[in-house]
Amino acid sequence: MLRIPPDDDRLRHICEQCSTVHYQNPRIIAGCLPVYQDKVLLCRRAIEPRHGYWTLPAGFMENAESVEQAALRESWEEARANITLHELYTLFSIPHINQVYMLFKGELNDLNFSAGSESLEVKLFTEAEIPWQQLAFPSIHKTLQYYFADRLRQSYPLRSEVLGARPRPADKE
Amino acid sequence: MLRIPPDDDRLRHICEQCSTVHYQNPRIIAGCLPVYQDKVLLCRRAIEPRHGYWTLPAGFMENAESVEQAALRESWEEARANITLHELYTLFSIPHINQVYMLFKGELNDLNFSAGSESLEVKLFTEAEIPWQQLAFPSIHKTLQYYFADRLRQSYPLRSEVLGARPRPADKE
Repeated sequence: MLRIPPDDDRLRHICEQCSTVHYQNPRIIAGCLPVYQDKVLLCRRAIEPRHGYWTLPAGFMENAESVEQAALRESWEEARANITLHELYTLFSIPHINQVYMLFKGELNDLNFSAGSESLEVKLFTEAEIPWQQLAFPSIHKTLQYYFADRLRQSYPLRSEVLGARPRPADKE
Repeated sequence: MLRIPPDDDRLRHICEQCSTVHYQNPRIIAGCLPVYQDKVLLCRRAIEPRHGYWTLPAGFMENAESVEQAALRESWEEARANITLHELYTLFSIPHINQVYMLFKGELNDLNFSAGSESLEVKLFTEAEIPWQQLAFPSIHKTLQYYFADRLRQSYPLRSEVLGARPRPADKE
């Protein structure tokens, strides 16, 4: 049931049987941008949402792991990729869906990657080959845009940004 | 009750009445390091845990806000401080308590700060005045250590780190 716990000012989900308060806070999606020479690794999603679209390896961070461990675990689960993780590269807050994306730059250690159970295929793309119209999420689109722009300057500052809802046909004025 | 939902591989809390799955993911603690000239702003905690100890303004990020908004909200709630937020400065994963700290560098816009309801007092400290033995959490201690070291070089790279459990007397070998 929903009620306001003592010492709080917001409605929370509280279990009627054990009184546990299930706080609902934003969830972290950790992942990485795996680079190999002049190419980046993308995964084609075998799951909803956005089945069949291309994405970077990323997923919900779980309890009892670090952000970096979550990024490496997701890279393994989705792309069976051996990655060396570098610095945090994009930090996107997406308030309307209560998500925070944290994507690290990564380096592919070898070419022994393959599709995990959540991917249809996994493939390396040069900048010219990126399937811009078939990317799964705005966070992925932005990260790739930033990467290819920053690569020209060989400087990769942390990009921190708030992403809003995508305009839908019904939203037109 | 706890059970494994379809298409999942972990035990989750599931409401027996409405079947809502209450995922338990790490929670983000957003906050900032407010700087004014050669001083930093600390708050003395009026709440548990660590009642009476000094901390930086920070707290659990809520749904429907960005990380930056959460850091500014907490700075207002705890220190009634008007802050200009700069870049993300420390990123601490604390796996044993399922928390991720994200602290931004901040600039105090004016001296009109005061204790919010969760603080006993709010005060500016020079480096020499920092109450190192009365800091509330390892994340706060580390952030202040990094800050004063980085200030000498006038360079503030993002510090990303995993913090373990503090050794307790019972843990001694």
